[in-house]
Amino acid sequence: MSATWGKCKSVLITGSSRGLGLQMVKDLAKRSSRPATIIASARNPTGSTDLQELSKSYPGVHIVTLDVESEQSVSSALQEVRSIVGSEGLSCLINNAAIGSIEDINMVTPEAMMKNFQINTVAPLFVTKAFLPLLQTAAARSAGMGIHRAAVINMSSILGSVTLNEGEGANFKSYSYRASKAALNMMTKCLAADLDSDGILCMSLHPGWVRTDMGGPLADLSVEESVPALLSVLADLSEKDQGGFKDYRGDNLPW
Amino acid sequence: MSATWGKCKSVLITGSSRGLGLQMVKDLAKRSSRPATIIASARNPTGSTDLQELSKSYPGVHIVTLDVESEQSVSSALQEVRSIVGSEGLSCLINNAAIGSIEDINMVTPEAMMKNFQINTVAPLFVTKAFLPLLQTAAARSAGMGIHRAAVINMSSILGSVTLNEGEGANFKSYSYRASKAALNMMTKCLAADLDSDGILCMSLHPGWVRTDMGGPLADLSVEESVPALLSVLADLSEKDQGGFKDYRGDNLPW
Repeated sequence: MSATWGKCKSVLITGSSRGLGLQMVKDLAKRSSRPATIIASARNPTGSTDLQELSKSYPGVHIVTLDVESEQSVSSALQEVRSIVGSEGLSCLINNAAIGSIEDINMVTPEAMMKNFQINTVAPLFVTKAFLPLLQTAAARSAGMGIHRAAVINMSSILGSVTLNEGEGANFKSYSYRASKAALNMMTKCLAADLDSDGILCMSLHPGWVRTDMGGPLADLSVEESVPALLSVLADLSEKDQGGFKDYRGDNLPW
Repeated sequence: MSATWGKCKSVLITGSSRGLGLQMVKDLAKRSSRPATIIASARNPTGSTDLQELSKSYPGVHIVTLDVESEQSVSSALQEVRSIVGSEGLSCLINNAAIGSIEDINMVTPEAMMKNFQINTVAPLFVTKAFLPLLQTAAARSAGMGIHRAAVINMSSILGSVTLNEGEGANFKSYSYRASKAALNMMTKCLAADLDSDGILCMSLHPGWVRTDMGGPLADLSVEESVPALLSVLADLSEKDQGGFKDYRGDNLPW
C-alpha cells in the first residue's frame, strides 16, 4: 500500500484513553509519516497515564477532554480543537467512543437499549455535527476524497450488520449493541448523502473482534493486530468508499 | 392468492386509533374469512369514534388501551389480552404504533433521535417480550410457520433500509426516523433468530408511502390501497420469510 497517514494533516479520535482509541493514537504518533496534529479525546483523559505519556513523548499529540454525551463538553472541546487546528481545519474525525454489552432476549432492558443508542448512535452524530465547520474548512482547502481532505469515520461493528445477523452470525447476542450499531450505520449513510457535496467522506468501519475491555479476553485479535490494518484501510479511502462499510482488512460488509 | 386471514385465530394491532392501524382493523373486521378475535389497541382508544363504532358493529373486535411507551400500560394490556384470547394464546402481533418526523442534518436534535428510538424501536421489542408467553401458547398448538401459528410483524419502512439510503433513495431526509427503523429491522432479525425454535415467525414490513397523518397528503397510496395488499402479504407468510423484510406488494427489500 502506497497510501500513508502523512497526507492527513490532523485527526481527532474520541474514546482514546484505552482500547482501540489509545492504540490508534499510539500507532499514529510513532510513525515517521503521520498527521502533524493528533488529537486524542476522552471523557476523563487525566485517568490515562498511557495517553499522558504519549503526549509528552511525541510532538503534536494533543489531549482534549470530550464527554460525547454532554453537549457542553462537546462545545468546549470544539473550541479547544479549533484553536489547535486553526485555519487548516480538521482532516479526520474518528468516532470511536462507544459502549457495549452482552444480553439475550431475557436480559435486555429498555434502559440498556436507550443507553446504547445515546452513546453509540446519537453521540457520534452530534459530535460530527459540532465539528462539521472544522471538517468543511479542511475540505475547502483540498480536492478529491479521503483522509487527505476530510473524513468522518464511524467505528461500527459487524454486529451492526442486519444481513449477517442470522445462522452462526446470530450466535452473539446483544440486542442493544446490535441495534445501536445498525442505527449508526444508517447515520453513516445519511451523513454520506448530506456531506458529499462538501467533499467530506463518511464511512463505517468494523475493527474486527479485538481483545479490549469491550471485546473481552477471548476475542480474535490484539489491538496491535487490528489497528495497523484498520489504519491502512483508512489511508486508502477514496471517492468509491463514500457511505461504505468495511472491515479492518478492507473487505466490504453488507448492511 | 389462496391464503386467507381465516386461518389466523387472533390478531393484536398496536396504534390502531387511526391511519394504517385503524384501516387494518376495519378491513379485517369486515371480511367473511377473518380472525375470530381482533384486538385493536391504542394509547387513547376512547378518542377514536371509528374504533368505537367498529367494535360495536362487528363481533370479536376488542379495544384495549395500550401506551407502548409505558411498562405499566403494557402490563395491564397483557392481562386484558390474556383474558380475551384464553388458552388459545395470541396468533399475530402487529407492532404498528410509531411516530415519524422529517428533519435534515440542520434540524435533527438529540431529543428527536431518542424519542424515535423509544417509540419505534424499544417499544416494539418490549411489547413483543411482554406478549411472548401468549405467542408461545399459540405456537405450541399448531405447526408450520405463519399467521396461522404465531407471528410478530414489525411495521418498518423502506426509509429504514440502509442499502437504499443513497442516490434518489436519500432524498427523503429524516435522521431520527431512518435510524429508528434501521434499528427496528435489527430487532426483527434478533427476534427471528431467538424465537424460531418456538415456531414464531418475525418479519419487517414496509406498508408503502401512505396518505396518513404520518405519510402526509402527497403520499403515493391511500390506506384502502395499502392495507388489503399488505394483509395479503402477511396471509402468505411461511418458513422462508423468517427474519425477512418485505413491502406491501410482497417484494423483498434489502436491509
